[in-house]
Amino acid sequence: MILGKLLIGGEWQLGEAGHFNAVNPATGDTLPVQYSKASAEQISAAASAANIAFASYRNTSLKDRAGFLNACADEIMALGDELLECMQSETGYPRGRCEGERGRTVGQLRMFADYIQSGDHLDPRIDMARPDRQPLPRPDLRFLNQALGVVAVFAVSNFPLAYSTAGGDSASALAAGCPVIVKGHVSHPGTGELVAQALAIAAQKTGMPGGVISFVQGDDKIGGAALINAPEVKAIGFTGSIGGGTAIYRMAALRPEPIPVFAEMGSINPVVFLPETLAQSAEQLATGFVGSLTLGSGQFCVNPGLLIALEEDGLQRFMDTVKTTLETAPAGVMLNQNICNSYQRGNGTFANHPAMELIAEGQVAVQAEGFYAQAKLYSTSAENYLANPELSEEVFGPTSVLVVCKTIDEIHQVISSLGGQLTGTVHGTENELTDNAMLLQLLGQKAGRLVINGFPTGVEVCPTMVHGGPYPASTDARFTAVGTAAIKRFVRPVCYQNFPQALLPEALQNANPLDILRTVDGEKTKTTIST
Amino acid sequence: MILGKLLIGGEWQLGEAGHFNAVNPATGDTLPVQYSKASAEQISAAASAANIAFASYRNTSLKDRAGFLNACADEIMALGDELLECMQSETGYPRGRCEGERGRTVGQLRMFADYIQSGDHLDPRIDMARPDRQPLPRPDLRFLNQALGVVAVFAVSNFPLAYSTAGGDSASALAAGCPVIVKGHVSHPGTGELVAQALAIAAQKTGMPGGVISFVQGDDKIGGAALINAPEVKAIGFTGSIGGGTAIYRMAALRPEPIPVFAEMGSINPVVFLPETLAQSAEQLATGFVGSLTLGSGQFCVNPGLLIALEEDGLQRFMDTVKTTLETAPAGVMLNQNICNSYQRGNGTFANHPAMELIAEGQVAVQAEGFYAQAKLYSTSAENYLANPELSEEVFGPTSVLVVCKTIDEIHQVISSLGGQLTGTVHGTENELTDNAMLLQLLGQKAGRLVINGFPTGVEVCPTMVHGGPYPASTDARFTAVGTAAIKRFVRPVCYQNFPQALLPEALQNANPLDILRTVDGEKTKTTIST
Repeated sequence: MILGKLLIGGEWQLGEAGHFNAVNPATGDTLPVQYSKASAEQISAAASAANIAFASYRNTSLKDRAGFLNACADEIMALGDELLECMQSETGYPRGRCEGERGRTVGQLRMFADYIQSGDHLDPRIDMARPDRQPLPRPDLRFLNQALGVVAVFAVSNFPLAYSTAGGDSASALAAGCPVIVKGHVSHPGTGELVAQALAIAAQKTGMPGGVISFVQGDDKIGGAALINAPEVKAIGFTGSIGGGTAIYRMAALRPEPIPVFAEMGSINPVVFLPETLAQSAEQLATGFVGSLTLGSGQFCVNPGLLIALEEDGLQRFMDTVKTTLETAPAGVMLNQNICNSYQRGNGTFANHPAMELIAEGQVAVQAEGFYAQAKLYSTSAENYLANPELSEEVFGPTSVLVVCKTIDEIHQVISSLGGQLTGTVHGTENELTDNAMLLQLLGQKAGRLVINGFPTGVEVCPTMVHGGPYPASTDARFTAVGTAAIKRFVRPVCYQNFPQALLPEALQNANPLDILRTVDGEKTKTTIST
Repeated sequence: MILGKLLIGGEWQLGEAGHFNAVNPATGDTLPVQYSKASAEQISAAASAANIAFASYRNTSLKDRAGFLNACADEIMALGDELLECMQSETGYPRGRCEGERGRTVGQLRMFADYIQSGDHLDPRIDMARPDRQPLPRPDLRFLNQALGVVAVFAVSNFPLAYSTAGGDSASALAAGCPVIVKGHVSHPGTGELVAQALAIAAQKTGMPGGVISFVQGDDKIGGAALINAPEVKAIGFTGSIGGGTAIYRMAALRPEPIPVFAEMGSINPVVFLPETLAQSAEQLATGFVGSLTLGSGQFCVNPGLLIALEEDGLQRFMDTVKTTLETAPAGVMLNQNICNSYQRGNGTFANHPAMELIAEGQVAVQAEGFYAQAKLYSTSAENYLANPELSEEVFGPTSVLVVCKTIDEIHQVISSLGGQLTGTVHGTENELTDNAMLLQLLGQKAGRLVINGFPTGVEVCPTMVHGGPYPASTDARFTAVGTAAIKRFVRPVCYQNFPQALLPEALQNANPLDILRTVDGEKTKTTIST
């Protein structure tokens, strides 16, 4: 049952800074449950409780921590229909999407439970002593990653499960041994609270400290600033807008003790169609594109917002097919009033721009109320695109811009003009791809993930995923928000010099009691060390 | 031969922003060579040239890049006496120290040459396609680290070789495939330029692009700001003061495109003496401490600036021995007027503080000119130390504070009161260490390296070294400035989705032509993939 409360130090309490309600975006109706907002003092209390929890949680065994992560997954599933129905009412997503996202979220928790038991994230290293080395002996040196400290996670609007309370940021931080404080998103407070309830029960059942997970809400900026500036917080995970993420990044850099922020932000995800492929498969590419464009009402970070093609055979057929396919696409529900307003504004800019032509559009909303988006494809020339930087701004939702180029060199110029991207995609025959090595090089310098002959939507949760990229796709291209490598954001190495065996962490002891792969004198091995 | 010029895009040119001379710190004499200062425009030109070099340098094979790093080491050695004599005149270091630091510097370049050929820093990962997966097939996904981009390195005062032009920051960035722009340190412009000459020759001999290494000088802040704000620069390495490093970090965060800064900064490196050990070995520990305190005139980041002990057996003998040992220690040369002035100021604060007592001191300088430091050990109570935060500020040089505690709990309080540290040291018998697990836990949360029964000076260059730590020891505790892991600061992962074999980087091709260890479907293996 939803309480409208905050989870602080293992206790549910009413927020002291007023109340708010959620809105059903499909109808525009205010939902009945009242949620309470955290005061700055309550945020401080959560940070303090999380830091107390850190002292014990950081020392939990990998097995116990895995048990906790699996219990989190179990308890989220145990929420059953209440979670799915709440999520539907707060997002307008169809039931299938809600179930799918739940599956991804619990799958991610279980993946980290498995992954940490391999010890890979610890990067254990041992350099044996060399007492006879000249001119000075070398001491025994051992290296191990450990948990960074309390992590603050800002939930996102568009993934109430997979990037929010128990999403990728929280799962990877908890897996690393870091307590988490989640700031819920105002668009889905009930979904957020229910998941927090599941995590609190999982913590209790598996004997984790109460402060290992905190959940605070609020529709104003006071709580966010208090969280960013809490001295106990040692890292931040954020998914959202370029403006929001950059502001948090800079606020964190200006703290008395600066802390790292991984913000996954905006991206227009360029998709290049090379001419031979376009000529061969114009209709099929058009259908694939429309599916990717309109998936989840276009509310994906990896939505294809930019198409690039040569003015050659197939392009007209591509545009024609997009037009006829999009004509039958119903308007999609957007997550909230703000996102819907931004979408209208962005479309207004494009629609009124003298350099832009409207190529295709989806259906308008049949509902009088609620927040709906009509899908759009605009077109412009490379020359105009390069001369008007406002045309490369992200319009979050089902809108895309087709840039028509005269030469491959113009395609290179368009790619080079872009900021950092989550993804870069090229459609081409094997010959075309081989002939366009420079194009792949340029895209590779811009993007975190390169896709051949596909569309960027669909982010696998696995060891090889990179969901990040150069700014403004993220605030730090060296990390990813999704996949096992996401844990690297929340660990730091410590070197142990001349430690007696018994005082070393198990992962570094000669006997290798955890039976994990380690780098011993530069070689990867699981063998024990005899002395 | 020293030219007094700047290296920009492979060409030596005179700086356009005036001139400066170096000073011999042992005599205070101005040295004869005139060095020219870079203008902001010259810094921009260097950044632009470096970025052009990046396009080809990032794609050099690991073997060719290793050849370049080894050639850098060879050419530094080929500078011979000219380098050593110049360094001595600019630093006042004895010849042995200069030779030792040169050995460490070329050893570090050769270590990275070997290391990158293992492919470990690439973290290559392959998740095979699963065309039959339900409900959706999984694409072929592969993950590889690649070079981040142009790196700016700020040389440090106290290691003209090992942390400057071709030091750990430059070596790890070049190893990663990043061109480097070095901003020389005003204390040793000749040493810096000679090493830059060696690197330029190495680049030429091994066919690397001219802009792979640039060297700029200047004794003002204009050049530094221009370098930090150059849009082509994608990361910064810095070693120096807390004020300087933090300012650069924040400036970089406020750029239109924020970039990561790894600044290795201040540390007082607490050393705890547990009572049984102190009673057993007071004299030996005192001698060891004085050696560590006065090494290199105390001008090490890991100089032991804080001693912590119980008021028990052995402490008086420890203090007596420090007193008699230090009495014979000659004043050491400091690197420049600023460092010497700061040292005097810090000592003035300590000497005049009512809570501080002077326990021991070294000899005063016999020279009338030059910059010299008299070693000092002060003492205070834990109560006073905790009540007066100014007593825990770093005094860079051979000065240390002994904090006398009444209880182990007071020791814990002193440790807890500290900011982040490069190192934390405990001297104790095995029983004492076992009984003081909490002490090690507390130190482990503060420091990047934990030392048992040793002193923190002596930073090994190896896979297990961590030279970093929580702020203010560094600006990002997740990285190290020394050891093979230092390369992680300068790489970012890219995911390749559904790439044809021929278009994949060699490290990710099924045939594993580089014969490197890779993570295939979660398992580490060198085997080829058959399809």
